[in-house]
Amino acid sequence: MASPAASIDSRSTVASSFAAAYPGSRRVYAGDGRVRVPMREVALSGGEPPLRVYDTSGPHDSDVRAGLPALRRPWIADRGDVAEAAPAGRTPGSVEIPASLRRPVVRGAGPVTQMHYARRGEITPEMEFVALREGLDPEMVRAEVARGRAIIPANVNHPELEPMAIGRRFLVKINANIGNSAVSSSIDEEVEKLRWATLWGADTIMDLSTGPDIHETREWIVRNAPVPVGTVPIYQALEKVGGRPEELTWEIYRDTLIEQAEQGVDYFTVHAGVLLRYVPATARRVTGIVSRGGSIHAKWCLAHHQENFAYTHFREICEIMRAYDVSFSLGDGLRPGSIADANDEAQFAELRTQGELTRIAWEYDVQVMNEGPGHVPMHLIRENMDKQLEWCGEAPFYTLGPLTTDIAPGYDHLTSGIGAAMIGWYGTAMLCYVTPKEHLGLPDREDVKQGVIAYKIAAHAADLAKGHPRARERDDALSKARFEFRWEDQFNLALDPVTARAYHDATLPADGAKVAHFCSMCGPKFCSMEITQQIRDFAAERGVDEAEAVEVGLEEKSAEFRERRELYLPVRK
Amino acid sequence: MASPAASIDSRSTVASSFAAAYPGSRRVYAGDGRVRVPMREVALSGGEPPLRVYDTSGPHDSDVRAGLPALRRPWIADRGDVAEAAPAGRTPGSVEIPASLRRPVVRGAGPVTQMHYARRGEITPEMEFVALREGLDPEMVRAEVARGRAIIPANVNHPELEPMAIGRRFLVKINANIGNSAVSSSIDEEVEKLRWATLWGADTIMDLSTGPDIHETREWIVRNAPVPVGTVPIYQALEKVGGRPEELTWEIYRDTLIEQAEQGVDYFTVHAGVLLRYVPATARRVTGIVSRGGSIHAKWCLAHHQENFAYTHFREICEIMRAYDVSFSLGDGLRPGSIADANDEAQFAELRTQGELTRIAWEYDVQVMNEGPGHVPMHLIRENMDKQLEWCGEAPFYTLGPLTTDIAPGYDHLTSGIGAAMIGWYGTAMLCYVTPKEHLGLPDREDVKQGVIAYKIAAHAADLAKGHPRARERDDALSKARFEFRWEDQFNLALDPVTARAYHDATLPADGAKVAHFCSMCGPKFCSMEITQQIRDFAAERGVDEAEAVEVGLEEKSAEFRERRELYLPVRK
Repeated sequence: MASPAASIDSRSTVASSFAAAYPGSRRVYAGDGRVRVPMREVALSGGEPPLRVYDTSGPHDSDVRAGLPALRRPWIADRGDVAEAAPAGRTPGSVEIPASLRRPVVRGAGPVTQMHYARRGEITPEMEFVALREGLDPEMVRAEVARGRAIIPANVNHPELEPMAIGRRFLVKINANIGNSAVSSSIDEEVEKLRWATLWGADTIMDLSTGPDIHETREWIVRNAPVPVGTVPIYQALEKVGGRPEELTWEIYRDTLIEQAEQGVDYFTVHAGVLLRYVPATARRVTGIVSRGGSIHAKWCLAHHQENFAYTHFREICEIMRAYDVSFSLGDGLRPGSIADANDEAQFAELRTQGELTRIAWEYDVQVMNEGPGHVPMHLIRENMDKQLEWCGEAPFYTLGPLTTDIAPGYDHLTSGIGAAMIGWYGTAMLCYVTPKEHLGLPDREDVKQGVIAYKIAAHAADLAKGHPRARERDDALSKARFEFRWEDQFNLALDPVTARAYHDATLPADGAKVAHFCSMCGPKFCSMEITQQIRDFAAERGVDEAEAVEVGLEEKSAEFRERRELYLPVRK
Repeated sequence: MASPAASIDSRSTVASSFAAAYPGSRRVYAGDGRVRVPMREVALSGGEPPLRVYDTSGPHDSDVRAGLPALRRPWIADRGDVAEAAPAGRTPGSVEIPASLRRPVVRGAGPVTQMHYARRGEITPEMEFVALREGLDPEMVRAEVARGRAIIPANVNHPELEPMAIGRRFLVKINANIGNSAVSSSIDEEVEKLRWATLWGADTIMDLSTGPDIHETREWIVRNAPVPVGTVPIYQALEKVGGRPEELTWEIYRDTLIEQAEQGVDYFTVHAGVLLRYVPATARRVTGIVSRGGSIHAKWCLAHHQENFAYTHFREICEIMRAYDVSFSLGDGLRPGSIADANDEAQFAELRTQGELTRIAWEYDVQVMNEGPGHVPMHLIRENMDKQLEWCGEAPFYTLGPLTTDIAPGYDHLTSGIGAAMIGWYGTAMLCYVTPKEHLGLPDREDVKQGVIAYKIAAHAADLAKGHPRARERDDALSKARFEFRWEDQFNLALDPVTARAYHDATLPADGAKVAHFCSMCGPKFCSMEITQQIRDFAAERGVDEAEAVEVGLEEKSAEFRERRELYLPVRK
């Protein structure tokens, strides 16, 4: 492999540019106390005030070889409950990590989790940051974290993180998976995917690397991640035993957890709910076990005829995770992989166990979310949410889609975007994106963008339906711009301004068309929005309420209106 | 403009090819009685029987200058209730219609509608065709049409039509809008768009042309349409008065209805529910009136201070439509154009009037569906469906989306696909597609395809959720193919086989990869599907039930399983 440092260096500035993605926007900061929250501010015309939107793109112009600034370091230090520790775990690969990326490793003697602080009544800077970011009350943030209804994934070894919350009363979040596999990708591509995904709005990323140099890839990613980073540690553990699930041991898995916790991973997918007795039911399914992690644990259980070590050692895992504030993402290793297998016995058996494990983790003040399906037709989605809330004590739900049909490989960002929006409305806190390449191949740059945009749409549609206090601001601003033919504002308020503009220009490229009071759908005649404007103008000019103009029935006014028609509807010669 | 005939001729064979779009499929026919229904049959490997799917692509290899074969002509003639009539209306443009496209015009003395026949207990060939096409009981089809809960749009002057039904107990249908506007497109592009849209699965198309040669464009479209064609006649009426809504008259509108009924248009959007007294409420909206038809009628009402002529002359319209079997699509001219305006007073006032008009049309045996929104956040969608069912006597609902957020211009096939799937599940019978260019420009070829595919997904997801008896066959076949690594079958069963294959090949292009028992997402290790297969194989070979293998606890078997590991999980060297 070529030196990743060199190739990252040459790509980073051209690739994921805030200015290129969001013309008409600038970075601003909210707050002036102990936290300053980056926001994106969209400038508007027509006398409209600028609109501030949630921004996950992180610090701009940083050097990927140095990593991001350590925003949280003073907050962590001020709490005085962590100490520097010699790294226990490091799995060397073939690539050197530059000195500029290395960080001291810290560890708590007792629990150092946001849940721990929340339960003792403390509003941390992380909670303040989240509150300011979403326009919510800091005390509400604390209370939700204390109850386990929200998590703020924030490893003490990931000081670069801009804190965010995952919970039902917060904005619905989205996760983007990145990570090389044995047949594809390299470190620099993965770091660039991270920057690209967060530029478009990914709230967390998961590094699912399975190839060589897995430790180094993760180091580059965490040091450059302004968002929480999640992993599935069993993947790396399996690498350590040459890909043979039967040779996995609790000790290898435990050491992998520590290695990754020391690097700053913010949440771990742990498939502790895949129990030996649940496995047989999957053999009768149309698509068996489709979770990689689930199948690894299942095979280990069958081969040894023993219970899953992640289950039997779960309390020890909790003790590791609370010392770094790594959050659980309790995996759904037996999730359905097809419409046919949705909501079956194996799936719900595991969900009950996820609930049991959630309560154990909470004994240790460890933050928890639960992973959910998968492939579920629309009429069976609600049951997943209801059971998860009931069985898992309202811990945040984190679902993959769900995909609402299996017949559209190549378009699964869309089949799953439907299910994601619905389950987000029902109460799911975070949605794991699906790209158009799902089931077919690894996502490239454009696929990652398409997946993120599809899921931003799903999450935002859910926020509107849930009534998040800030959700409608942007819809209303864009609708008003649309109605008033402020084309530039409409583009700039869009999730993807450049694409919106390009689509407009494909039919009406002239600059004049961007101030025109019509668009190419109807042409200069028939413009319904223009006609509404005329109805309004007419009422306003005449000094009468529009209702009166109609209902009182002033024939004289209707005659005037007729005469003025040429002003309103230009006739093509 | 260049001669459209010449340019159509040169394009037609290369453009919309069934063979290119669906490799591995062939055209077959179901039925051998008085109707033969075209289906697409997907050949499968691995000993699986071929799968037949619904096919809207129409006759292949037809000459667009001659139009499609007149499938329904004998059925119409056999009923003996229409007579040839001299065409009353023809609005000449600049383009000649070739003699090969001209058809005699027929008209009924009394009602010749499918509803009329259904009510007197007759199962028409059209109903039989529909029943065979969807695997339903012909008597059920008749009963639904008789009750007004389903329509079979089928103008007696459109004998080329392959009949289809729009109703809650049938497969959810989708409509694709085509049509040139003043600033774009030409006849040959529109005909090609029709062929392209039906190739990908459009169940009906609407010709929304507003430019020159509107009559000729429609003639080309209807003669080549294997699916019902809908129009909004007020657009052409407005052309006749130079684009000045105030100059419209009932007589001009009436003559336009007759002209289009004679050409064979199968359903008309009629905005008869836009009443004078509803207009003022729209002036207070964020986005006023966004329906073109709605705004034209609203402006006319205000200018004349008179009630909408489509409302005051509604019974005369019914008399025209029943003589050709043109179905109503009662327009929602006051639908919301933004999240802010959803479910408001103006919208629901019009919906009540749509209900009133539906019942009047049924007095005349005229088939009716009702158009619905528009822009509606998820939590307000259900109310639309419930009110429509109640107020409009369960007439089929036909919605545009709805779009569930306004913040993603460029991706409105997706914002609306979410709402479309949901409202389809709730009971909407037909979904009007939205393309990525919505709000920005006119759709091109790729946009039309993207819109159709997005809506096929929404419709199918709804069919699954509603439990249509045939819906799950295809999901299960594809899931099984996926699980068994029958890659070619997975591609061929997809809504878009070529794209699915291309995405696969982008990561693993070698032909060997298409028979490989792994894919690029996980690489040759970690394959969860492969592991499930091993679990099954192990159980099967040992002659024990999988459950027993686990639960009885045969230590011996688990030892064997361990030894055989190399067979299962190849280790990379």
